[in-house]
Amino acid sequence: MRLQLMSWPEVETYLQRRTDIIIPIGSTEQHGPTGLLGTDAITAEAIAWKLGEAVGACVGPTLGVGMAHHHLAFAGTVSLRPSTLAAVVADVVASLHRHGFTHMLFVNGHGGNVATVNMAFQEIAAASSFGGGSVPPVCSIVNWWDGNRVKDLARTLYGDQDGSHGTASEISVTWAVHPDQVRRAEFGPAPAARPWTDAADFRRHFPDGRIGSNPGLSDPAHGAALIEAAVADLAERHAGFAARA
Amino acid sequence: MRLQLMSWPEVETYLQRRTDIIIPIGSTEQHGPTGLLGTDAITAEAIAWKLGEAVGACVGPTLGVGMAHHHLAFAGTVSLRPSTLAAVVADVVASLHRHGFTHMLFVNGHGGNVATVNMAFQEIAAASSFGGGSVPPVCSIVNWWDGNRVKDLARTLYGDQDGSHGTASEISVTWAVHPDQVRRAEFGPAPAARPWTDAADFRRHFPDGRIGSNPGLSDPAHGAALIEAAVADLAERHAGFAARA
Amino acid sequence: MRLQLMSWPEVETYLQRRTDIIIPIGSTEQHGPTGLLGTDAITAEAIAWKLGEAVGACVGPTLGVGMAHHHLAFAGTVSLRPSTLAAVVADVVASLHRHGFTHMLFVNGHGGNVATVNMAFQEIAAASSFGGGSVPPVCSIVNWWDGNRVKDLARTLYGDQDGSHGTASEISVTWAVHPDQVRRAEFGPAPAARPWTDAADFRRHFPDGRIGSNPGLSDPAHGAALIEAAVADLAERHAGFAARA
Amino acid sequence: MRLQLMSWPEVETYLQRRTDIIIPIGSTEQHGPTGLLGTDAITAEAIAWKLGEAVGACVGPTLGVGMAHHHLAFAGTVSLRPSTLAAVVADVVASLHRHGFTHMLFVNGHGGNVATVNMAFQEIAAASSFGGGSVPPVCSIVNWWDGNRVKDLARTLYGDQDGSHGTASEISVTWAVHPDQVRRAEFGPAPAARPWTDAADFRRHFPDGRIGSNPGLSDPAHGAALIEAAVADLAERHAGFAARA
Amino acid sequence: MRLQLMSWPEVETYLQRRTDIIIPIGSTEQHGPTGLLGTDAITAEAIAWKLGEAVGACVGPTLGVGMAHHHLAFAGTVSLRPSTLAAVVADVVASLHRHGFTHMLFVNGHGGNVATVNMAFQEIAAASSFGGGSVPPVCSIVNWWDGNRVKDLARTLYGDQDGSHGTASEISVTWAVHPDQVRRAEFGPAPAARPWTDAADFRRHFPDGRIGSNPGLSDPAHGAALIEAAVADLAERHAGFAARA
Amino acid sequence: MRLQLMSWPEVETYLQRRTDIIIPIGSTEQHGPTGLLGTDAITAEAIAWKLGEAVGACVGPTLGVGMAHHHLAFAGTVSLRPSTLAAVVADVVASLHRHGFTHMLFVNGHGGNVATVNMAFQEIAAASSFGGGSVPPVCSIVNWWDGNRVKDLARTLYGDQDGSHGTASEISVTWAVHPDQVRRAEFGPAPAARPWTDAADFRRHFPDGRIGSNPGLSDPAHGAALIEAAVADLAERHAGFAARA
Repeated sequence: MRLQLMSWPEVETYLQRRTDIIIPIGSTEQHGPTGLLGTDAITAEAIAWKLGEAVGACVGPTLGVGMAHHHLAFAGTVSLRPSTLAAVVADVVASLHRHGFTHMLFVNGHGGNVATVNMAFQEIAAASSFGGGSVPPVCSIVNWWDGNRVKDLARTLYGDQDGSHGTASEISVTWAVHPDQVRRAEFGPAPAARPWTDAADFRRHFPDGRIGSNPGLSDPAHGAALIEAAVADLAERHAGFAARA
Repeated sequence: MRLQLMSWPEVETYLQRRTDIIIPIGSTEQHGPTGLLGTDAITAEAIAWKLGEAVGACVGPTLGVGMAHHHLAFAGTVSLRPSTLAAVVADVVASLHRHGFTHMLFVNGHGGNVATVNMAFQEIAAASSFGGGSVPPVCSIVNWWDGNRVKDLARTLYGDQDGSHGTASEISVTWAVHPDQVRRAEFGPAPAARPWTDAADFRRHFPDGRIGSNPGLSDPAHGAALIEAAVADLAERHAGFAARA
Repeated sequence: MRLQLMSWPEVETYLQRRTDIIIPIGSTEQHGPTGLLGTDAITAEAIAWKLGEAVGACVGPTLGVGMAHHHLAFAGTVSLRPSTLAAVVADVVASLHRHGFTHMLFVNGHGGNVATVNMAFQEIAAASSFGGGSVPPVCSIVNWWDGNRVKDLARTLYGDQDGSHGTASEISVTWAVHPDQVRRAEFGPAPAARPWTDAADFRRHFPDGRIGSNPGLSDPAHGAALIEAAVADLAERHAGFAARA
Repeated sequence: MRLQLMSWPEVETYLQRRTDIIIPIGSTEQHGPTGLLGTDAITAEAIAWKLGEAVGACVGPTLGVGMAHHHLAFAGTVSLRPSTLAAVVADVVASLHRHGFTHMLFVNGHGGNVATVNMAFQEIAAASSFGGGSVPPVCSIVNWWDGNRVKDLARTLYGDQDGSHGTASEISVTWAVHPDQVRRAEFGPAPAARPWTDAADFRRHFPDGRIGSNPGLSDPAHGAALIEAAVADLAERHAGFAARA
Repeated sequence: MRLQLMSWPEVETYLQRRTDIIIPIGSTEQHGPTGLLGTDAITAEAIAWKLGEAVGACVGPTLGVGMAHHHLAFAGTVSLRPSTLAAVVADVVASLHRHGFTHMLFVNGHGGNVATVNMAFQEIAAASSFGGGSVPPVCSIVNWWDGNRVKDLARTLYGDQDGSHGTASEISVTWAVHPDQVRRAEFGPAPAARPWTDAADFRRHFPDGRIGSNPGLSDPAHGAALIEAAVADLAERHAGFAARA
Repeated sequence: MRLQLMSWPEVETYLQRRTDIIIPIGSTEQHGPTGLLGTDAITAEAIAWKLGEAVGACVGPTLGVGMAHHHLAFAGTVSLRPSTLAAVVADVVASLHRHGFTHMLFVNGHGGNVATVNMAFQEIAAASSFGGGSVPPVCSIVNWWDGNRVKDLARTLYGDQDGSHGTASEISVTWAVHPDQVRRAEFGPAPAARPWTDAADFRRHFPDGRIGSNPGLSDPAHGAALIEAAVADLAERHAGFAARA
């Protein structure tokens, strides 16, 4: 049940039954030499849509541009500043809350969004805590790859070559969603994860954009299995979330 | 050529040939009793993608949530505040400009975005005019329905029943893109266009969300023809735009 | 009836009878080699004051600095950033609304203000639509030169040499207001209208500041007639505006 | 020499000789039962214009709406929030600085502006101190009534009945500028000065808007003498200011 | 009674008796060749704590970083932008106001904070004046050195060599608080007070950071006496403040 | 080596040797029925100062008010909004960076600060990534209780009764720092950790402010040992941090 494919009376009807919603949030950023710029949006959206089907929940519009400044030294990356993303999240949450949605689960495709989105949730709640806002909704952000099923499967498939950016897993998922976008290649080892500051510093440490990953191991069939695992993980998470009082 | 389905080296290659980009911008808002909430994003995206094919240009990520506060009294509408949308546009433009894109054509699906997006373009350019920014890119926003071919076709198909919100035209376009989402119904006359202030005032004047439109006339085949007309209109517009020095 | 020449009890009395107000908004920016920097403020103010007399309405303080960043490459131009002007408009509207004014007509002397002022009106209304504000007032911005009487007169007087910046019309109006400021000169043809980005780009395209205009045709007597025509045009517009429910 | 009555080449010529400018800043706020709402703008503007003549300096556009939130419980008051006024001052200063003005003297008609305008000057200078801005201009704000000549004259004319808001002095000045706006009346004693918080609190303490003043003593002839005194005071102040290295 | 050394039930009990609070505000900035960077925070805190004991009032957390951009050309200075400090003050006041504190006296150690803190108080009150906020608390900022006892004592101790930055007085106070931090030295004359713009300009005029001061005269015993004098001055000031209705 | 107890020439000398700095960041918020409101500032400061001694590093001013909106339903809590705290962090980092500090380790006493401070670091770095800022410094935030020594010791001392707010550990640390502030009491079991939204919701779930903790087990001697353990943990962490290229 995608919000964008519903009419307003259909949403009104939905809200009479339940008041939770799932919101895919991704990013548009480099994912290594062959990874798609839209990887994080594509994966979050595909998994959120299937999660919505699995748990019968409405899925809101995909937020396809995230907080990705550190990838800006690679062509095609599009980023919001953290303060801009926080404002977007605040307005989306306020819009949905006005209609009566009370539980908003952001299914996330990009680790770089997490601090900012959590800061935004706190800014929203702070307006209420300071006494100037109404009771805020229950909001949470969850990475699709953080559940046990996905972690186990990724370890089985890729061992220690999944990496942490431009991962073999996420590239497999994009290939499952867009089978016409498979770009196979051989990869040498990628630099291990380490901290960075800005975009130039990121590129200095990770010259082709990958962090610890070997997308040469990716496969569309893996992607399908990873989506299934992610949906199962998230459905559990969603059950607890939607029950929060 | 969708940016989200390209890798960063592919964008780098593109930028060696040309530096223009098309960005679909829509909205998530009520479109009458049967219209899809995602109408403005769906239409802008579909037309921008085809325009990109027609003129060989790269198409950036769809901005699917726009400035739609006046529709917030209808369930499911998701809006950004004008200042938030302006910040989003500023960051998207700055990201692309950093990579070397110089001409950015926003293909728009929602009239309510226009003032804010133009204000954002001016805020970006003002940073340069005041002496604190680099040379700004050439930016423009164009509504897909404003060209002569679309206007003529809509008049032929719907006479004076196209309306100005939840239009017969745009609903036809969404049905062409999503044939499984056709919702046929009979409609009485809709209130004529007039000004409004906030969401409550809008709903008071337009109780079911339509302005002057009769979506009972919509048809998927019309939608296909309207898309073709819009692409032809916009291709002309794009040629002049991309040539601007 | 100028607000700045009223006492607070007089405004209180006025508000018992009617709740509309007219607000002149202009700019301080170059207007070609001989045009006054204050042209847009002078014209808007003079016409707004006479409109106020014609329709019996109170006229608020003139906003004499507008959104004119693109003129900053010419000495003397003073501009607000769009976001600053939007904040000014929001505060002015909120102040007047607090007293009970419900209809605010901005009489505009500078095209560059329009997108930002409309964005500001939407930001104000959005605060209400999102649920955090009171019912917003009815706001509108109208250019003094957009009515039929002015357009016809300008065409009669100047044919296709009125132009779109530093126009023969507006310079005539400033001379009618300030007869001691007439600066006659001969002018060669001015570049035709075309888009621009920032101040440097504007000056590159329009080296002496004019766009398509021939102020050599201006005359104080024209100015007086243009003011009269503008007031007649705007009085009609005002009648409809003040009657909006 | 009023900037708004100059052309851009005339400003360019001026800047070849000297780079100082005077900027009148006032307010639109209640000034007691008979005082004009525009008092602070009218006085600042009249005195700044005469000061400009006296010292041969250019006078910029009048900022006629200031920081007057505490007067909002009286009809007709128009206020900017402090943060908005600070943004206006920043943009005006940046605009003038871009053209080469280096010394900007704000001639002030409203005590309530002082903290905010000084804060704005510091925000501008801070941008440079933090390393992100160019050398800031020399900015100062001076109240027209703070010099010795004005203080002495006001004491002579009104003794301890000049007050601190809706003063006999300022009302005399407005009458000198607008002889057709004289509103004579008898006044009882006004409450003495004391602190306040918001607009409701202000009105509670000062029910008719006056603080310690007796405008029944005002006279247009006083106004003319006060203007002369203020110009003499400010000319001295300006000499030191313009000489600052 | 330091808030940071109280539990929440103890604050609750305090608020049943009285609702005033004292807040020390300082700065972290150069204070001449030997002065401590924390001088303004150390002095404000020590005096506020003793004032709290003297008048039985609760003392809130010290705001140790203030508005000190003009000292940034000297190593170790830490400054907030004016707009940031204003936001801090607004949040601190709102937090305390939520609990029921109604009177907040900021005891200030740095002159550079004054304009910004007063602007912040006005921004807070303006929210109420515009109609969007609750009744604001009574707020005031007072410099510890502005009372007559301190002024007399400083004059007695240092004559005209106290200066206005890195003063002999304030350095004596820091030595009374931190006897292990005495750094004695001989000083030549310091430049007299004069205006400045940014950090570079400040350093140009005041090469070693002092303004008119001779810290060679400082002494820990003076500091103890100055603290006592300041507390006596401020206790009087506090009595009037806390009684404000 | 506390920055606030150094003179500017001493900081200049320090910067010739090394360019790292430690910044304590805490909060002023309820810590259960007996915990001090300043707990998070006191612990962070005490541990940061000792860490500075251990590793020879300069320690900047303590940021004693953090992001604690969710504790605002308990008297005495003082919070910044997330956006305010982010601005504070940005200005503090920019100030230090201007002097040549390149590595800034925030030693944190309050979990609620983490998302916002990380968001602030990203906002700072984004300014550079977008092309408008200089190379950003290396910034990191570390909770004093997250190292293995502290974790092991807390488990040994308190088993599963340390909790996650108003912890037995942190209260012990405050008692080690302020032995005169020991408040012994008996405690019943505290509610287990679970998510919350705003301040009212927090208090509903955690009526006396504790989350899972038993401060009845706290002891000043534990505090001293915990400080020692934290310093050892953080010294390791600091070594890696300061070596980052």
